[in-house]
Amino acid sequence: MHQPDRVSLREVAPRDGLQNEPPVPTADKIRLIDALSRTGLSRIEAVSFVSPKAVPQMADAAEVWAAVEKHSGIRYSALAPNRKGVERALAAGFTAVEVVVSASETHNRANVGRSVAESLAELPDICALAREHLASVEVIIATSFGCPFEGDIDPAQVARIVEAAEAAGAGRVAFGDTTGMGTPRRVTDLLDAVGTGLPMLMHFHDTRGTALANLLTALDRGVTEFDASVGGIGGCPFAPGATGNVATEEVVHMLHDMGVATGIDLDALIRTAGLAQEIVSRPLESGVLRAGPRTSLSPKP
Amino acid sequence: MHQPDRVSLREVAPRDGLQNEPPVPTADKIRLIDALSRTGLSRIEAVSFVSPKAVPQMADAAEVWAAVEKHSGIRYSALAPNRKGVERALAAGFTAVEVVVSASETHNRANVGRSVAESLAELPDICALAREHLASVEVIIATSFGCPFEGDIDPAQVARIVEAAEAAGAGRVAFGDTTGMGTPRRVTDLLDAVGTGLPMLMHFHDTRGTALANLLTALDRGVTEFDASVGGIGGCPFAPGATGNVATEEVVHMLHDMGVATGIDLDALIRTAGLAQEIVSRPLESGVLRAGPRTSLSPKP
Repeated sequence: MHQPDRVSLREVAPRDGLQNEPPVPTADKIRLIDALSRTGLSRIEAVSFVSPKAVPQMADAAEVWAAVEKHSGIRYSALAPNRKGVERALAAGFTAVEVVVSASETHNRANVGRSVAESLAELPDICALAREHLASVEVIIATSFGCPFEGDIDPAQVARIVEAAEAAGAGRVAFGDTTGMGTPRRVTDLLDAVGTGLPMLMHFHDTRGTALANLLTALDRGVTEFDASVGGIGGCPFAPGATGNVATEEVVHMLHDMGVATGIDLDALIRTAGLAQEIVSRPLESGVLRAGPRTSLSPKP
Repeated sequence: MHQPDRVSLREVAPRDGLQNEPPVPTADKIRLIDALSRTGLSRIEAVSFVSPKAVPQMADAAEVWAAVEKHSGIRYSALAPNRKGVERALAAGFTAVEVVVSASETHNRANVGRSVAESLAELPDICALAREHLASVEVIIATSFGCPFEGDIDPAQVARIVEAAEAAGAGRVAFGDTTGMGTPRRVTDLLDAVGTGLPMLMHFHDTRGTALANLLTALDRGVTEFDASVGGIGGCPFAPGATGNVATEEVVHMLHDMGVATGIDLDALIRTAGLAQEIVSRPLESGVLRAGPRTSLSPKP
């Protein structure tokens, strides 16, 4: 199996994680981002600019962003569902924005209240606006590996969205396994179907235990960028109590033991997973948080 | 990546699972084994013959085995730590026994109260005894991917135990990731070091999220036999609350979506995971049990 020397991880706990947990105080969000900024992570999805009515968890996005320490070596990004959100992100000073569109028609309507075509139609304008602000645009394609309402998603549909994103002027694409329906077969099928020169990132959930197997499959196919959420925060919205985002410390733990560099200090990351656990006030499911890394030994009996 | 057409799974919940949970009634053990026998599984590790003082959970092994329905298409096995246990297993009528020895000296002393050399010295006699009873012997090498007391295990040490097992007349070997220290790199290193004509099985724990990534790595290297525990029962003895055995339904769920046959009915298996959850009286961590398979869709909004 092929493996790269280095992988680039984007930490999504402050946004994707906290957006799928009961609301937490603004000060805790700032504490979490600041702690993450000190772990060696080079990319952090900090906030989203969404309707505060639909997503009260992110109502304080501008306030959070104004208060966090900005480290020069870290690329902070904000997610937006539409042009209005992108405008707010740019106004807040972000130079990296993510726009989300679902591969599934039903999921796109549930998630952003309009058709896939309507989401795509807005992209050229969003990309032009971002360019004016010298900002980059990544298109995140949700439900890329399956939709909880529609079931399997034809990889050709994902490929069409990638083409539309590229034509619109987006600089990057990401594939979201929104409810953990991905398997190694789905990763392979998607990569067989998608042809693009754009940088690609994959976002896996561990809902059904496959996150690290999917990541390994993607590595073998040359993908070197992944999302992950410290402590695995961000539950699965369709299965209360079930695991959502893959835990960053589980990804780093496996990659480092394989000799794949991430630039991240695993011990600092595990301590930050502990902070995340404190903030969301529930026991998190990350195995590396609970059991410690494989190098943490028990006293000899 | 290489993948086989078919994988053979051995279900270990009745033994390895229940041995690492608080004791449950004999009738529940029988119910669990009988339910597993109706899922299409072709191999079940049913009980162990160990000291009832050291392992009260298995004190009723002979009673359980006498009462369960024996299906002609299923290979039932029993585990034993030494010759005395093997004698009891053969007396109870088992024709497949597993003898456990650790790759780690410290773990072997903690687990079976003697040195690795002492465990190995007994093997030829055990294999001869089993042959007299027309029974097969599998040597399970615990801590093959790391030891919670000693840390990394030299794959050459595992290879030496395999050689000793083969020389003693064992018919099969298994590699146990006893406390979930395995990663794809450890699987590769082990398979690079071990050269044997014996059938090989791998036993992964999901303590740190790597179980299915490890399994995928082993598949790519030609391994087609794995242990798994329905519902993931059998905690991690060194980290209270942490995940132990990989859940059988998570393995089957991923393999079937990849087009790899197991002969198992996933729905029946998930129902049996629900029964296992009832029996151990705690919420289990299996993602496929909690969230359902990827094919189980939500109503359209």
